[in-house]
Amino acid sequence: MKNPIIISPQEQIKEKYHSIRNRSAEICQPLEIEDYVVQPIVDVSPPKWHLGHTTWFFETFILIPNFPDYKVFDSQYNFVFNSYYETIGSRVIRTDRGNLSRPSVADIYRYLEYVDKNMDYFLSNYNLSEDLKKLFELGLNHEQQHQELLLTDIKYILGHNPLFPAYDENFPSEKPEQESLEMINFPEGIYEIGFEGDGFCFDNELNRHKVYLNSFEISNRLVTNAEYLEFMNDNGYKDFRHWHAEGWDWVKENNAKSPLYWHFIDGKWMYYTLNGLKEINPDDAVCHINFFEASAFASWKGLRLPTEAEWEVASEKFDWGKRWEWTGSAYLPYPGFAKEAGAVGEYNGKFMVNQMVLRGSSVATPIGHSRKTYRNFFQTKLQWQFTGMRLAK
Amino acid sequence: MKNPIIISPQEQIKEKYHSIRNRSAEICQPLEIEDYVVQPIVDVSPPKWHLGHTTWFFETFILIPNFPDYKVFDSQYNFVFNSYYETIGSRVIRTDRGNLSRPSVADIYRYLEYVDKNMDYFLSNYNLSEDLKKLFELGLNHEQQHQELLLTDIKYILGHNPLFPAYDENFPSEKPEQESLEMINFPEGIYEIGFEGDGFCFDNELNRHKVYLNSFEISNRLVTNAEYLEFMNDNGYKDFRHWHAEGWDWVKENNAKSPLYWHFIDGKWMYYTLNGLKEINPDDAVCHINFFEASAFASWKGLRLPTEAEWEVASEKFDWGKRWEWTGSAYLPYPGFAKEAGAVGEYNGKFMVNQMVLRGSSVATPIGHSRKTYRNFFQTKLQWQFTGMRLAK
Amino acid sequence: MKNPIIISPQEQIKEKYHSIRNRSAEICQPLEIEDYVVQPIVDVSPPKWHLGHTTWFFETFILIPNFPDYKVFDSQYNFVFNSYYETIGSRVIRTDRGNLSRPSVADIYRYLEYVDKNMDYFLSNYNLSEDLKKLFELGLNHEQQHQELLLTDIKYILGHNPLFPAYDENFPSEKPEQESLEMINFPEGIYEIGFEGDGFCFDNELNRHKVYLNSFEISNRLVTNAEYLEFMNDNGYKDFRHWHAEGWDWVKENNAKSPLYWHFIDGKWMYYTLNGLKEINPDDAVCHINFFEASAFASWKGLRLPTEAEWEVASEKFDWGKRWEWTGSAYLPYPGFAKEAGAVGEYNGKFMVNQMVLRGSSVATPIGHSRKTYRNFFQTKLQWQFTGMRLAK
Amino acid sequence: MKNPIIISPQEQIKEKYHSIRNRSAEICQPLEIEDYVVQPIVDVSPPKWHLGHTTWFFETFILIPNFPDYKVFDSQYNFVFNSYYETIGSRVIRTDRGNLSRPSVADIYRYLEYVDKNMDYFLSNYNLSEDLKKLFELGLNHEQQHQELLLTDIKYILGHNPLFPAYDENFPSEKPEQESLEMINFPEGIYEIGFEGDGFCFDNELNRHKVYLNSFEISNRLVTNAEYLEFMNDNGYKDFRHWHAEGWDWVKENNAKSPLYWHFIDGKWMYYTLNGLKEINPDDAVCHINFFEASAFASWKGLRLPTEAEWEVASEKFDWGKRWEWTGSAYLPYPGFAKEAGAVGEYNGKFMVNQMVLRGSSVATPIGHSRKTYRNFFQTKLQWQFTGMRLAK
Repeated sequence: MKNPIIISPQEQIKEKYHSIRNRSAEICQPLEIEDYVVQPIVDVSPPKWHLGHTTWFFETFILIPNFPDYKVFDSQYNFVFNSYYETIGSRVIRTDRGNLSRPSVADIYRYLEYVDKNMDYFLSNYNLSEDLKKLFELGLNHEQQHQELLLTDIKYILGHNPLFPAYDENFPSEKPEQESLEMINFPEGIYEIGFEGDGFCFDNELNRHKVYLNSFEISNRLVTNAEYLEFMNDNGYKDFRHWHAEGWDWVKENNAKSPLYWHFIDGKWMYYTLNGLKEINPDDAVCHINFFEASAFASWKGLRLPTEAEWEVASEKFDWGKRWEWTGSAYLPYPGFAKEAGAVGEYNGKFMVNQMVLRGSSVATPIGHSRKTYRNFFQTKLQWQFTGMRLAK
Repeated sequence: MKNPIIISPQEQIKEKYHSIRNRSAEICQPLEIEDYVVQPIVDVSPPKWHLGHTTWFFETFILIPNFPDYKVFDSQYNFVFNSYYETIGSRVIRTDRGNLSRPSVADIYRYLEYVDKNMDYFLSNYNLSEDLKKLFELGLNHEQQHQELLLTDIKYILGHNPLFPAYDENFPSEKPEQESLEMINFPEGIYEIGFEGDGFCFDNELNRHKVYLNSFEISNRLVTNAEYLEFMNDNGYKDFRHWHAEGWDWVKENNAKSPLYWHFIDGKWMYYTLNGLKEINPDDAVCHINFFEASAFASWKGLRLPTEAEWEVASEKFDWGKRWEWTGSAYLPYPGFAKEAGAVGEYNGKFMVNQMVLRGSSVATPIGHSRKTYRNFFQTKLQWQFTGMRLAK
Repeated sequence: MKNPIIISPQEQIKEKYHSIRNRSAEICQPLEIEDYVVQPIVDVSPPKWHLGHTTWFFETFILIPNFPDYKVFDSQYNFVFNSYYETIGSRVIRTDRGNLSRPSVADIYRYLEYVDKNMDYFLSNYNLSEDLKKLFELGLNHEQQHQELLLTDIKYILGHNPLFPAYDENFPSEKPEQESLEMINFPEGIYEIGFEGDGFCFDNELNRHKVYLNSFEISNRLVTNAEYLEFMNDNGYKDFRHWHAEGWDWVKENNAKSPLYWHFIDGKWMYYTLNGLKEINPDDAVCHINFFEASAFASWKGLRLPTEAEWEVASEKFDWGKRWEWTGSAYLPYPGFAKEAGAVGEYNGKFMVNQMVLRGSSVATPIGHSRKTYRNFFQTKLQWQFTGMRLAK
Repeated sequence: MKNPIIISPQEQIKEKYHSIRNRSAEICQPLEIEDYVVQPIVDVSPPKWHLGHTTWFFETFILIPNFPDYKVFDSQYNFVFNSYYETIGSRVIRTDRGNLSRPSVADIYRYLEYVDKNMDYFLSNYNLSEDLKKLFELGLNHEQQHQELLLTDIKYILGHNPLFPAYDENFPSEKPEQESLEMINFPEGIYEIGFEGDGFCFDNELNRHKVYLNSFEISNRLVTNAEYLEFMNDNGYKDFRHWHAEGWDWVKENNAKSPLYWHFIDGKWMYYTLNGLKEINPDDAVCHINFFEASAFASWKGLRLPTEAEWEVASEKFDWGKRWEWTGSAYLPYPGFAKEAGAVGEYNGKFMVNQMVLRGSSVATPIGHSRKTYRNFFQTKLQWQFTGMRLAK
C-alpha cells in the first residue's frame, strides 16, 4: 500500500476524498433498492437523491470549471440533482424528488464511480489552488452533512413503514445518560465565541467575537427519556401554559403526544430505532423532539434552554455528541458575517431567519464532522433529526 | 401438456386464472425496480401496490374463507394492500402507498407465487360453488381492471420523469383514424340497454331496461389530434364560453393548454407515448383529455357528447376500442340496480355520484375485458386514462 | 288607485316589476346594518350584495343598452356587483364580497331607488320588444331566485352567530307532515317531461321530451324529523355502508352528526329557525340535509330517491312546496337544450356538471316562483338551502 | 372644571382612564357602521371587535374580580370578545370575528358606556391596591396597542376596497425625510439595554442587562420611497440573491413587486393612505414593508439592519417615531425574563419564537405609548403595520 513516509499533501487530499466519499455508499449498503426511492415528507430526501446530489457537487463546482478534458456524465442530471424546475416544451415539470424512479440506483452508482475516477485523476494530475482547496474542503463537509441526513432520512423512511424493518440490527447502540444531574456554574463577564484557527469552518461560524453573558448554570448531561416521560405523564402535552402559541398550534394540529417514533403498544412505550422497534430505555437521552417540545419541557421544569453562546462557553465542561441540542438562540448572522461570493455563498446565509440554533452533534454525525463552534439550525417544528436538550438557568 | 379432449371445466378455470394472472407480471416486465415504487399523484398507484392488491383479493376473498388449510402469507399485508389506516400503539400511521419501500418488489413476487400456487392447488382439489365461481370471475375482472391501471400508471410515472424514458420501444402503435368523418342517424323510439346474457358483467350494467331516445346522430370515428389542434389554435383553452364553470376553474388553476403528455418543444407539439417522446401524429385519435376538455371541444364544434344510451345503441355501427369515450351521462344506478351483499357490494355503487360514464375501451384494456354494455367512470378532471371522444348531435 | 278596467299591459308590467322588486327590500327589513355585510362561507353572499347584484342586472341588461338617456349610477359598481376581478395598477384586488364594507347599505338603497325610478320611467315611455320582454321576465325571475337566497343566507348568517338572534319572531311557521306514509304507484311507460305552455321558464326546462319510466312508487309526503332521528340513532352517520364514498369523506372531514342547524343542548335536539332556536318538532319535514345525507337515509331505509322524471310525473298526486327535494338525477341538459346567445346564455348551462337536481320549492321560495318543471340544482355537499327528501322504490 | 390644586391620585387615574378610553371611539368616529364589521385577512380584526375586546379586558380583569356589586353586561360576550371556541350543544361554532354581525355596533357602544360608567364608579369609590394599579396600567397600555391596531386595520379594510375610500381626508400628513443620509458611529464595548425606572413597561423589556457590541454605524434617518424605488427598479424583487430563502418563497407565492398599498396606475406609482389614494412622495419614509423586504433592501445596499441593542443604544442620536423599524434581532427573552403569574402572563412570552423585533413607534402609535426600550414584534411576512427601516453597518 501507500508508503507513509513519502505521502504528498496531494496524496493526503486524495485519500481523504475517497475515505469520506466511500462512507456515503457504506451507509446505504443495508438498503433495498426500493428504500432509495421514496420521500415520505418534504424534509426527507430519497437516499438516491443524496448520493446523486453530493456527486453533482463535485462535478459541478470542481470538475467542470477546473478539469479541461472533463466530459459531463449526463447533462440532464444537472436539474435532477439541483432540485430546480425545468421547462420542457410548454409545460413545467416539477422534479419532485420522491416521484423520480429514474435515474435508477444503478445509474447513480455509475455516476458516483465516474465522478470519483475523474476526481482521482484530477487530484493526481493537477495542483489545487488555495481557492479550490477551500471549495474541495467545502464539498467534503457538504458530503458529511448529507451522510448525517442519509441516516436521519433512512430512519424516517423505515420508521414510518408499518412493517418497521430494522435498518441494521447491529447498528451500535448508545451509552445511556447515567450521571446524576448537576448544574455547572459560570460567572458573568465577557466571553469570546466563534471559530478560530486554521482548519475548516462554515461561514456562519465567523467572525469570532465577544459576548457579554450574565452568570448562568448549565446541566452536566442531557434530559433523559425517564425525565421526559414525567413531563408527558404530568399532562405536558395538554397544558398550553408550557408552550409557545405557535407550539401549541403544532400540538393541536398534529395531536402530538410524544416525541417522534414513540408508539404506545400494549401498555408500553416503544421506540423505533435503527435496530428496529425497542422498548424505551429510561436512561437514554430523549431524542427526536422539536424546539417547541424542548421549550415546553424546560418551562415545565422551571428552567430554560441555554443560549448558543452559553453552550459554546460551557462545552468544555461536559460531554456532548449524542444529540443535536436545541438552544434558545435564533439562527442569525454573527457580527461581521459575510456571504461568500458566487453560488456557494447561498450555503448558509439565506436560511438565517425563523430557525433555531442546535449545538453539539449526534450519533448520526460522521466522525470528524463536529466542533464546539459548529452552528446547526432547523425549523422549530422539525423532529426528524437526532435532537435532544440540555437545561440551563 | 393438457389434452384438449378431456379438459374439465375446472381445468379451464385454472387455465384462465393463470393466463390472466400472468399477464400482470408480464406488463411489469420492462420496469426497473425503482419504477414499481413511486406514486407521483394520488390517482396513480405504485405498480408494486397493484400487484400486491390483486393478489390480496384472491387471498382474502377466495383462499382464506374457503381453503381450510390455507396459511396467510403475511398477516401484515392485509392493511398494506387494503389501503386502510392502521393504529400502531397510540399513533396512527397512514400507509401512503407511495411512501412504502417495503414490502420489496421481490417480496411481492414471492407473495404472487405463493398465492398462485395455493390457488392452483385449491382449484385442482375443490369444486367451486356457484357463488364462489362468481366471486372468482369478479377477481379476474378486477385483475384486468388493474392491468389497465398498471399501464396508465406506468405511463404517468415515466411520462412525468424529466428523462422521458420509454416503457417499451416496441409497444404496439395504433392505427390512425383515417375514415372521413360521417354522422350516423338513429330514429327516435324505445331502445333497450344494459347487459343481458350468461357471461360476466359488473353489477352496474344491470338491470337491462328500456329508454326512450330522441332521434340522434353520432360520428363514425373518434376526434383526431388534427381536429383537437384546431380547437387549441382557435383559443379553445382561452375562451370561457366553451367550458363548464367548473371546467374553466380547472383550466385556470392548472394553466391548462393541451391534453396531458403534450409538450411544445422547439416549435413542434410532441407527445409522450409508451414508446417514448414522439411528434404528434395528426391522424391519431386525441388521447388523455378530461371530461371538461371533451365537453369544451364539442361545444366549440357546435355539437355534443353522446349519452351512454345513444352510444350503446349505436355501438354496432362503428369501430370502438381505442379510447375510453367520454359520454354526456352521469354515472348513476340503472333502474333496479342493487348492491351485492358483503364487501364486494362496495365495488361500484358507492362511486355513483359526481363522475361521468365512459364507454368502449382503450388500447390499454386487456383483451377480453370489454363489451358494449361496460360502464367505466371517472371524475371530470382526470386525464391520465386513455380517454378520447366521439361527437353527437 | 289604478282602475282595473283600463290597465294596459305595460302598466301590468310596471306593477309586476315594483311588486317583485319591493319584496327584496321587505325581506331585509328586519336586519341590522351589520347583518348586510358578512359572508361566513363562500356559498353565502352578504345581503347587501344580493340587493346590489339584482339591481345591477336591470341596469346592465335593460337600461344601459335600451334606454338612450340613462346615466350609470356609479361606473365602479359594475365590478363590485359582477363578482369579477379588477386590476388596479399593477396589483389585482380580489373583490371578496364579504370584505367589502363599501358601498354602504345606504348607498345600495340609493342605487335601488335610482334604478327603480329609471325603470319606471323607461317602462312608462318605451314599449318593450318581445326580446326585451323575455329579458325583463328573466330579470324578475332572477330577482326571485335571489330573494330565496336572501332568506337562506340570512338564516346562515344569524344561525351561525353564537347569540342565535331570531330573524323575525313572527316568521310564519310551517304545517307539519301529518299524513301517514303511503307509496303511490305509477305504471311503466312513456311519459313526457319538461316545460310546455306560454309562460316563463328557464332554458334548462326545455325541450319537453319523452322518457321511458319503469313502474315506480313514490311517497305521499316528505321524510320527517322523527324518521331522520331514527336514522341518526341507528348510527346512520357512523356506518359507511349507507354512504357514497365521497359522502363518507364528507362525514369524516366535517365530523357530521346531524343536519345543519341542529344542536344537541342539555339532552335535547334543538334547531335554529328564522324564529330563533327551538326544540325539534318530530313531525316537521327534515330540512337542511345535503344529497349525501338524503342518499344515505334512503339507503338505510332500503329505498331510493326518485329521479326528476319520476318526480315530475308524480307531482300532481302529492303536495309539494315545503322543501327543495333532492332527486337521484344529475343536472344535465335535456335533449335539444340550447344555450341562449350572449351573456344570459351563461345562466344555466355552464353549471351542468357535478350537481344534482332538486325539485319542488321551499318555504323560502317567493310566491309565484315555482312550477312542477322547475329544475333547481346544487352541489352534493351543500346543506344551507331548505332541502329535504321524498322516497321512491 | 376640576381644580388642579386638589386633584387626588385617584382622580388622576380616572382622568387618564377616560382620556385613553375615549380615544378608541374617537378613532372610529369617521367610520360607517359597515366598516366596523369586516375582516379581510386573519391578521386584521373588525373595528367593533377591538372596541369590545378592550372593554372586555377591564370588565374581566378589573371589575368582575374586584367590584363586589358589578353585574356582567352580557355573559355571552365573554367568548365573543375572548376569541375562543364555544361548544353549543354537540357542534362547535367557531366565532370567526369577521362573520359576526352581532353584537351590533350600537350594542358594543352600549357595552363601552356601561363598563366605563362602572369603572368610573369603581375608581371613585375604591382605592386600587398596588397589584391592581399595575393591572389597570396594563389595561390602558393594552387599549393603546389596540388603538394602533385600529388604525392599521381600518387602513387595510378601506385600502383593499376597490372604491379606495379615504378614512379621513384631514388625517395629518407626515414630515418627509429630508436630511442627507449620514452614518453615526459607535465604539465597541459593553452597553446596557432594557427598561429601568419607575414607569410602566411590558415584561418583555426586562431585565435591564449588559450586552457587548462591536463597533457599528447606524443611519441618521429612515430609508425613503425614492431609495426603495431604486431597489425596485434595479430588479430587487426579481433577484433571489438579496432574499432569505423563505423571503424568496414569499415573493414568488405572492407575486410581490412593491410594498403593500402601492399600485402602478397609468405609469405612476400611487399609494393608498388614510387620506385616500395619492401619488408616491419620494421623500417619505418607505412604509408597509415586511422583514423580508427590509432585509433584501439592506442586502442590495451592501448593508444590514441594526440589532435591537444597537438601535436602543443609538436611539438618542436620531429622531424616531414615524415607522416601526425592523431590526435584525429575533424576538427572544432577555436574560432573567419571567412571565407574570396568571392570565396576563400570556401577554408576551408565548410569542417569543419565529418573530422579529421592531423598535421605535409609528405615526399610528398613540401619544405617550412609546419609549426607546419598547419591543414590538411581528412575523416576518407581515406588511400591514406602519413598518419601515434604518440601515446599519
